Amino acid sequence: MSLKSSVFIATSLDGYIARGDGSIDWLDRANESVPAGEDCGYGNFIESIDVLVMGRNTFEKVLSFGDWPYTKPVVVLSRGQVSLPKSISQTVCVSSEPPSALVERLANSGAKHLYVDGGLVIQSFLREGLIDEITITVIPVLLGSGKPLFGTLGKEIELAHIATKAYEFGFVQSKYCVVKI
Amino acid sequence: MSLKSSVFIATSLDGYIARGDGSIDWLDRANESVPAGEDCGYGNFIESIDVLVMGRNTFEKVLSFGDWPYTKPVVVLSRGQVSLPKSISQTVCVSSEPPSALVERLANSGAKHLYVDGGLVIQSFLREGLIDEITITVIPVLLGSGKPLFGTLGKEIELAHIATKAYEFGFVQSKYCVVKI
Repeated sequence: MSLKSSVFIATSLDGYIARGDGSIDWLDRANESVPAGEDCGYGNFIESIDVLVMGRNTFEKVLSFGDWPYTKPVVVLSRGQVSLPKSISQTVCVSSEPPSALVERLANSGAKHLYVDGGLVIQSFLREGLIDEITITVIPVLLGSGKPLFGTLGKEIELAHIATKAYEFGFVQSKYCVVKI
Repeated sequence: MSLKSSVFIATSLDGYIARGDGSIDWLDRANESVPAGEDCGYGNFIESIDVLVMGRNTFEKVLSFGDWPYTKPVVVLSRGQVSLPKSISQTVCVSSEPPSALVERLANSGAKHLYVDGGLVIQSFLREGLIDEITITVIPVLLGSGKPLFGTLGKEIELAHIATKAYEFGFVQSKYCVVKI
């Protein structure tokens, strides 16, 4: 299959992507130290992807920010009901497919690069061997508790380090690919 | 107080310092890819410290390796019984002091730089604001479960990034200092 699935996410040094209640005020605060025009590679990454896959929690978080930020197609993975605002119903769909079926369908429809977002969805894709690249931007804070990026995967996954960039404002971004055995 | 306390430790990308049973076979395996003579700064770090503080688990792990590797004084923090082999009783002592009392005593005795090791001891020192620097060497693997370096701290700790070095064999070492407010 020629489809690549990537994670591109920020975490605290202790590996949390959000506080226990989902809030990312710590990330917003950290972003205040980022010079204008610096996006830590996010723009190039988003340009390179064809479809975003995210869970319902992440979807509702993004919705809560106001203006929908994505022009690319988005699949919201959810087994339950998700109400889609009409303004985004052209580019956003909801699916209850298992990750492997979704990936196969998107690959068959011509997608080359998936952006997999949200802790639980990333974890389920990792468990099924469906992640190819992981880019983590580590924010210099210990949150002490919260929603972990990786949690308990129940399996070991070997990685290969591709590149690391330390920004002068304290973020450290590392890119890994998953070694498929 | 002019005493500095440092953490110098390796973790998996998902933040574990050992498997659930304490084993570090994954770290030993990763170390096989490290060129001879490369110690990722460990030698210089050990040279710079005056006293090691570790928990009983870490102590027993180190003991299990055979030859005692440290020439510097070591304090094993434990509320229970710890049997000390006679061969190391000159440099190793056991203490049930709370972290703050221990740090104060060591500072008064002239120690300038503490090496704080072992997950639970590091966490208790962090909770009490007793850690100044954290150097983490990230090994390119997701263990999926195990003993976390940070666990649930119950408080937020702001850090400042000092330096990051990516080694060509895939380890990424980042050094932070704790921002004391």
